[in-house]
Amino acid sequence: MTIHKVSFLPHNKTIEVKDGENLIRAAMEAGVHINASCGGEGVCGKCRVIIEKGDVKDGISERLKPEDLKKGYRLACKSIVNQDVVIRVPVESSIDISVLNMQSTPRRTAKIQEFNFNDLKEQGLFAPPIEKKYLELPEPDSQDHLPDVTRLVSFLKLNYNEHRLVVELPVIRKIPDILRQNNFKITATLARPVQEGRKTHIINVEPGDTSSRNYAVAIDIGTTTVYGQLIDLISGEVLAQFGEFNDQISYGEDVISRIMFAEKGNGLEKLQEVIIGNINSIVKKLVKRASVSLDEISGITLAGNTTMTQLFLKVNPKYIRRSPYVPASTIYPPIKAVDLGIKVGEHVTALVYPQISSYVGGDIVAGVMGSGLYRTEELTLFMDIGTNAEIVVGNKDWMACAACSAGPAFEGGGIEFGMRAAKGAIEDFSIDPVSLEPMNITIGNVRPKGICGSGLIIIAATLFELGIIDNGGKFNRDLNTNRIRERDGVWEYVLAWEKDSQIDRDVVLTEIDIENLIRAKGAIYSGCQTLLEEVGLTINELDRIFLAGGFGSYVDLEKAMVIGLLPEMDAEKIIFIGNASLMGAKMSALTNRIRKDVVEVTKMMTNFELSETSSYMDHYVASLFLPHTDLQMFPKLKARLDARRKQGWK
Amino acid sequence: MTIHKVSFLPHNKTIEVKDGENLIRAAMEAGVHINASCGGEGVCGKCRVIIEKGDVKDGISERLKPEDLKKGYRLACKSIVNQDVVIRVPVESSIDISVLNMQSTPRRTAKIQEFNFNDLKEQGLFAPPIEKKYLELPEPDSQDHLPDVTRLVSFLKLNYNEHRLVVELPVIRKIPDILRQNNFKITATLARPVQEGRKTHIINVEPGDTSSRNYAVAIDIGTTTVYGQLIDLISGEVLAQFGEFNDQISYGEDVISRIMFAEKGNGLEKLQEVIIGNINSIVKKLVKRASVSLDEISGITLAGNTTMTQLFLKVNPKYIRRSPYVPASTIYPPIKAVDLGIKVGEHVTALVYPQISSYVGGDIVAGVMGSGLYRTEELTLFMDIGTNAEIVVGNKDWMACAACSAGPAFEGGGIEFGMRAAKGAIEDFSIDPVSLEPMNITIGNVRPKGICGSGLIIIAATLFELGIIDNGGKFNRDLNTNRIRERDGVWEYVLAWEKDSQIDRDVVLTEIDIENLIRAKGAIYSGCQTLLEEVGLTINELDRIFLAGGFGSYVDLEKAMVIGLLPEMDAEKIIFIGNASLMGAKMSALTNRIRKDVVEVTKMMTNFELSETSSYMDHYVASLFLPHTDLQMFPKLKARLDARRKQGWK
Repeated sequence: MTIHKVSFLPHNKTIEVKDGENLIRAAMEAGVHINASCGGEGVCGKCRVIIEKGDVKDGISERLKPEDLKKGYRLACKSIVNQDVVIRVPVESSIDISVLNMQSTPRRTAKIQEFNFNDLKEQGLFAPPIEKKYLELPEPDSQDHLPDVTRLVSFLKLNYNEHRLVVELPVIRKIPDILRQNNFKITATLARPVQEGRKTHIINVEPGDTSSRNYAVAIDIGTTTVYGQLIDLISGEVLAQFGEFNDQISYGEDVISRIMFAEKGNGLEKLQEVIIGNINSIVKKLVKRASVSLDEISGITLAGNTTMTQLFLKVNPKYIRRSPYVPASTIYPPIKAVDLGIKVGEHVTALVYPQISSYVGGDIVAGVMGSGLYRTEELTLFMDIGTNAEIVVGNKDWMACAACSAGPAFEGGGIEFGMRAAKGAIEDFSIDPVSLEPMNITIGNVRPKGICGSGLIIIAATLFELGIIDNGGKFNRDLNTNRIRERDGVWEYVLAWEKDSQIDRDVVLTEIDIENLIRAKGAIYSGCQTLLEEVGLTINELDRIFLAGGFGSYVDLEKAMVIGLLPEMDAEKIIFIGNASLMGAKMSALTNRIRKDVVEVTKMMTNFELSETSSYMDHYVASLFLPHTDLQMFPKLKARLDARRKQGWK
Repeated sequence: MTIHKVSFLPHNKTIEVKDGENLIRAAMEAGVHINASCGGEGVCGKCRVIIEKGDVKDGISERLKPEDLKKGYRLACKSIVNQDVVIRVPVESSIDISVLNMQSTPRRTAKIQEFNFNDLKEQGLFAPPIEKKYLELPEPDSQDHLPDVTRLVSFLKLNYNEHRLVVELPVIRKIPDILRQNNFKITATLARPVQEGRKTHIINVEPGDTSSRNYAVAIDIGTTTVYGQLIDLISGEVLAQFGEFNDQISYGEDVISRIMFAEKGNGLEKLQEVIIGNINSIVKKLVKRASVSLDEISGITLAGNTTMTQLFLKVNPKYIRRSPYVPASTIYPPIKAVDLGIKVGEHVTALVYPQISSYVGGDIVAGVMGSGLYRTEELTLFMDIGTNAEIVVGNKDWMACAACSAGPAFEGGGIEFGMRAAKGAIEDFSIDPVSLEPMNITIGNVRPKGICGSGLIIIAATLFELGIIDNGGKFNRDLNTNRIRERDGVWEYVLAWEKDSQIDRDVVLTEIDIENLIRAKGAIYSGCQTLLEEVGLTINELDRIFLAGGFGSYVDLEKAMVIGLLPEMDAEKIIFIGNASLMGAKMSALTNRIRKDVVEVTKMMTNFELSETSSYMDHYVASLFLPHTDLQMFPKLKARLDARRKQGWK
């Protein structure tokens, strides 16, 4: 991969970028503000820069006159970096260079921790729950009348020291013909017990030798998205991955509305049917992509939050939303996948991750298992931020968990122009400290139509750090710009004028939006504080944070600390673990050890109901500021704010 | 019950009979021959007797002239005993009184052993596999967020020391609503593991207290008939019993023809559907008769021969009839009854008795368990005589078993006028030693239309003992009677002339019929001999014989010894145990101990394939005589035959 240097003047900032990077994204990455309203589509024509040395590909637009082109002007949002280049950003000469660099530190996202299967093997944790064995059985004759099943079981006992074997009726039905199809040479599929000494089930027999083809599917059932992986049980490799939106969305955006739908008529049946449809569609795509046949799938493991799990299993979740909020069960026994409607072989068992409580579900347990939190010495805070943020704190010796009702702000809900992280969503943002003109970068480099969760955090943090909003989230009414205005009694900042947007209105961020954001981040932060306090710890004692879920991978860590969503700590210690639920599902497909350990883990995880913890409300109220009432908890931010105040900025 | 004395002259025999007994049956019971061709319908008018003292009810017919009536003549077959009476049977004056009593000893059937549930209780063997417990659970509140299933499981753990509890998905689905239907007061149904230390399953929950109503169904799936019992799991009582013909008969009389049907198209599915239909019909009748609701049935236990079991479970039995004759399996795991199509609650598990081999099936294993053979010290021969006779020999320390292919003679097959034990079947018979006129008694006292299995044995034994057939089963061609004749080259005895029968032909017994009978009894007797020889024993060493099945209850033991079907032994030692298969099914419904023991028993039962045992053919050939080539094995019969020969009888 070719790397190029891009230098920005007069800022004197240099950054290395991949060949083909968009110049305006490079500027954002470098912390260099360039006015850009249209999200990178080249419409507003504001992101003019001058090429001082080297060159860029493209960058030409009818917005630039021929003479400008000759002078080296280009539109940054249309320029592609394909060599080292020095760029000058035209700024008002009067501006102090320190102002130019007033953006907070360059964007930093959490480092990624990948699940390492080899580590697991080395630690002796690889004990696949489903094995295939190729067997050449002796044929019956007049001296050997062993019944077919007894023949198989005795052979395994004698030659492989397999004991306590159970053969279920559907397999018994197949055995006689399968044995005789290939002269008593067969492959038997064995499902191992979780506890040693329990029974091993012979779940399938096939003629001939199919022992090299043994696969499992791992599924994460999210409220919004459903992901699946196809796993080779022999190599441990993921052969394919696929995700799609949870079709239950049509019946309710969030868990509460789905529970309400499930309570009506045959709502539960409908929602179950729909999620099974998702799973079947994913499995179909996975096997196609990996060139595996459906009947080569030997197992399926699933994780989801408590409501998703109950809907998937057709266990009515109605009491989850009623005080005192109890789920039907935390543990579910293995279930025949076909009995749930999953279109795989009838021998396939679905293993579902156990739950902790109504709002700390199997996705979190899977995350705790998949991330290795339950095996670590380090004191770790695990956060999965979505509509409900679930938090776990602890290590291999103890764990406490809680759910915070954050509201849907991070998923675009309750924000006037909030949207999911899709094309046209503002995902990155900076502002000219003097003109207060924005630099919007959108997903897909198209004209903006809204703001996604990670964009929202960046916008709010940027506005706050430059004093454009105060620590209560209110706009400075004295600033001289038409972008800050009052409309119908509500103050707002215009991110993109209608003409620069994809929609028929200005794209704005209102004080109400900011209030909602503050409530959401406040719920999460105070949740962490309360949980830690309950176990006698403070945030400072944390060794690291695991950020799980799609949100965590995009969030700008520094900005998340500025608004007080994350505690201020070394960004190196914040680790993005991705879809931890899927990772956990995958791990339990690969090793039985997880299934055994998870029983202990669920017993170990103490659940706290925040709403019934007396200190929670105090913490919550204190968190309803940017970043917090107690600025001492954010010393680096405090130092920056203090420094700027001395420079005369508010 | 009133008892009357009936004396017969000139025989000087007196017998006690129940009030209302038919006079001709009383005569047969006393061993007094009265000519009677028409089976007791009063048509032939031959059974004239004179009332010498006392009186009888009825006995009048148009066959008797008024003057005969005045003289005290009555038709024996129409006379009902309702007081003490002295009867004179008109015989030719020249006949020696010894001839009159030349019939063998009065008919004796095996004594009946009833399964005794109280014995079982006293022996500590009563451990019901399914229990109901009424529980008053604490209700959840803001301080108690236990999930519903955890609440139930914890309560059982804490208050009843119940551990290793498993709750299946269908029960989890019900729990939340059931708990709240009656303020968390519920009845839980617990299914116990076979092995201690294994898991107990919570298979059902019901609102309120239903713990006093807990029932099971036991089913015997016979090739010909299916029987069911409804059992109260609290008292151990049988509340209802019902049997019907196995509807599979329409698709084949015997197991082999059913296996052949099962191999064609969807034959297997059809036969399974049909037997499930039988079971559902029986269950429906049982619950109706016992005023029990279908959903109060907690368990179902079944026993059947290997083919019936495989058909019931939809496991194709095709290899049972193909060399080397192996069944699919001997052990079947517990199966959800609804999955088989049985219409009971979805929590009900069907427990199916294990098999030994292709031809020694679960009915025999159930018999061994139900009869207590596996717990006895006495060396016992267990025989279940049908188309295939299964034999078991042994005691609590060891057991050997085998199946003899007897052919269908005892069920009326292969006999020209053979029929099942139904109305019109000759079930009892004697012959006038001088005139050779028959005395036929039929089931239902109607005109004969055929011969049932037990009747066949009596006819053959009677003909043989009086020298009318020789030990090869051939008729004495020199006898002076039109009842013995040659027809189409085959010799036969006319049991009933067309006019005295229900059919449009004479009812006869042919030499071919007798040959078939000899082969059938020879197969069984030589099977017993071979099996005993294989384990180093002889028939003389047996302590007792258990006769199982419908056939055993009707068979005249002495006559069965005369033809050499049963070894000659004290009739007191021959015990009729009835439907032993049903008895075994019932016992496993009542106590888990049986389910545990049966695993050991099946391991202990050594199966012998007679066809591959070298001595079998010699024994078989030696058995193809009446009673046997070696008359020394039947010393009492030999003594009688010798005595008669001395008197000048052949």
